[in-house]
Amino acid sequence: MAVYTEVTDDQLDAFLAEYDIGEPQSCKGIAEGVENSNYLLVTSRATYILTLYEKRVDPRDLPFFLGLMDHLAARGIPCPTPVHGRDGNALRTLAERPAAITTFLPGLWPRRILVDHCAPVGEALARLHLAGDGFKLTRPNALSVAGWRPLFDGSKDRADEVAPGLANELAADLAAFERDWPCDLPAGVIHADLFQDNVFFLHDRLSGLIDFYFACNDLLAYDVAVCLNAWCFEADRSFNVTKARALVGGYQRVRPLTAAERDALPLLASGAAMRFLLTRLYDWLHTPPGALVKRKDPLEYLARLRFHRGVGGADAYGL
Amino acid sequence: MAVYTEVTDDQLDAFLAEYDIGEPQSCKGIAEGVENSNYLLVTSRATYILTLYEKRVDPRDLPFFLGLMDHLAARGIPCPTPVHGRDGNALRTLAERPAAITTFLPGLWPRRILVDHCAPVGEALARLHLAGDGFKLTRPNALSVAGWRPLFDGSKDRADEVAPGLANELAADLAAFERDWPCDLPAGVIHADLFQDNVFFLHDRLSGLIDFYFACNDLLAYDVAVCLNAWCFEADRSFNVTKARALVGGYQRVRPLTAAERDALPLLASGAAMRFLLTRLYDWLHTPPGALVKRKDPLEYLARLRFHRGVGGADAYGL
Repeated sequence: MAVYTEVTDDQLDAFLAEYDIGEPQSCKGIAEGVENSNYLLVTSRATYILTLYEKRVDPRDLPFFLGLMDHLAARGIPCPTPVHGRDGNALRTLAERPAAITTFLPGLWPRRILVDHCAPVGEALARLHLAGDGFKLTRPNALSVAGWRPLFDGSKDRADEVAPGLANELAADLAAFERDWPCDLPAGVIHADLFQDNVFFLHDRLSGLIDFYFACNDLLAYDVAVCLNAWCFEADRSFNVTKARALVGGYQRVRPLTAAERDALPLLASGAAMRFLLTRLYDWLHTPPGALVKRKDPLEYLARLRFHRGVGGADAYGL
Repeated sequence: MAVYTEVTDDQLDAFLAEYDIGEPQSCKGIAEGVENSNYLLVTSRATYILTLYEKRVDPRDLPFFLGLMDHLAARGIPCPTPVHGRDGNALRTLAERPAAITTFLPGLWPRRILVDHCAPVGEALARLHLAGDGFKLTRPNALSVAGWRPLFDGSKDRADEVAPGLANELAADLAAFERDWPCDLPAGVIHADLFQDNVFFLHDRLSGLIDFYFACNDLLAYDVAVCLNAWCFEADRSFNVTKARALVGGYQRVRPLTAAERDALPLLASGAAMRFLLTRLYDWLHTPPGALVKRKDPLEYLARLRFHRGVGGADAYGL
C-alpha cells in the first residue's frame, strides 16, 4: 500500500503538457507497489500508470528500469511500456520526484495461487530471460550474496528477538552461501521479484508482468529460485511440489535449464529464501512502531530456507 | 487512504456473477475514502467503483445512502449511481462485508482550492438540496449537536494535551450550541461532508460529487456552513471572504437563503467547525500510535471555530 506523494493540480497539468496523451479525466492513487507512489491516470486517450519514485529507488537506476521495460515490451513481453514525452524522454520530474508514465496493463493478480497459475508464470519468466538478451544497460544485483552480509550485520544483534537462535542459524547459512554460491551459470537480465502481485491474469491467461524495480543482471536460474519461493509454498508454509513441477516445467518448455543450473537449484532456492528473509528481518527490526507500513513476517522465509536446505537435489522440485 | 479488505479471486468472480456488467479486466485498490475499502473495477463494459463497507459504517444506513444516490442521480445530480444486480439489489455481501458497485465519475478533486472552484460547489450543493426533496428514507444527523456531547465527554479529560485550556473553551461553546441551536430553519437531505476530495472537476467544470456516507436529514444551511469551513480557509488558517462570497453566491443563485438562514449562518458555521474539531480531537486522542491511519490535526478547526465565534453577522461571509 503506497501513495506517499500528493500531486497538485498545477504540477499535474504542467507534467502532462509534456506528453501527447490527451486530457486528464481522472487520477487516483492506487494501493499497489510499496516502494513508489502510483496513480491510475485516465485521459481522453487511454488509461496509464503514473509513478513517482520515492526514496527507496535510486534515481541512477531509473534509466535501467525504464530502458528495460522498453526493450522487453518491444520484444513482446506483456510489461508496462514507458510513455515518452514530446522531447523523447520517458523520465522527468513531478512534485520533486523522478516520475514516469507507463501503459496500463489489464488483468488481476491472483489473490490465491492455484496450480494453473504456475506453468504460465514459469513460461513468462523464461520468455523474459530470452527477451532480455541484447539489452545494453547493466545493473548488478545489490541483493545477491554480497548484499546479504550488511543486512545480516544490521540485524544479527536483535535477530533472536524474532526467533531464538536465529542469528547463529543465519550466520552459518551465510558463510556457506559466501563459500559455495555459483558464478559460472548462465546469466542475464532477471526480474528478481516476480511475486504473485506482480503477475496479472485475465480469463485464466497471463496478461502482464509488472514492477521491474528490482530487475538486474544475475544468474537466470536464481530468478527461477525466487519464483519457487514466491509461488510454491502454501499458507501453512508447506511446499507444494505440484506447483513447483508446473512452474519449472513451464519455464523449461521455453528455456531448458542446463544440468549445472538444475544441480544448483536447491542452493539458489535457499539463497532466494535468505534474501527475502534478510530484507524482511531488517525491516522488521528497523521499522518504527508508528510507521504507516505493514511489516512482513520474516519467519515465513525461515521456513522456506529450512525446507530448501534439507532438499537433496532438483528432483525435490519435481524436475 | 484505505483498502482494508483483500478480496479473493473466487469471491470477486462470484460477486460479479450477480451483475450484468461484463468481465473484470482490472481491480485495483484505490487510496480514496478513509472509511471504506474502494476498488477501481474495470470490466469489458465500463469502469466502476467497488466499495466494501468497513466497520465505521452502520449497515443499517446503507439503504439510505444507496437509495439517496439513486434518487439524486435520477434527478441529474452528478453523483455515483449504484449498479443494481440481476436480482434488482444494489447492496450485497463480499468478503463478509456489505458491498456495492457504483458508476465511475470522471474528474479530479482540486488539490489546491481556487476561488473559481467555490461558486460551482455552492451551486452544486444547492441543486443537491433541491433534488433531495421527495426522497422517502430519512436518517438523522448523528453528528449534529446532540452527538457532540458524547464526543466531548470522551475527549475532555485529555483535551488540554492538544491545546492548553481547550476543554474549558469547548465546554462553553458546547453549552451555547445546546442552548441556541436553531430548529426551525428549512431542512432536508444534506451531504454533510462536502470537502474538496469529494468534489470532482473536469476542464474547470464541476463533474461529480462523491462520498454520501455522512448524508442525512438536517438543516440545509448547516451544509452551507460545512462548506464555508471546508472551502474558504487558507493553509495559514486565514478566512478567504472572496471564496465565501463565491460559494454562498453560487448557492443562492440556485436556492436563495431565507433571512433566518442568513442570520443563523455564523452560529451554524461555528457548529460545523465544532463538529469536525470534535471528531478529529476524539480520533487524535483515541488512535493508537501504531495505527495505519493518518490523524488529522484538530487545531485547524479550533482556529475556524474561533473565527466564526467572532463573526458579527452573515456579512462577514460576503453576503
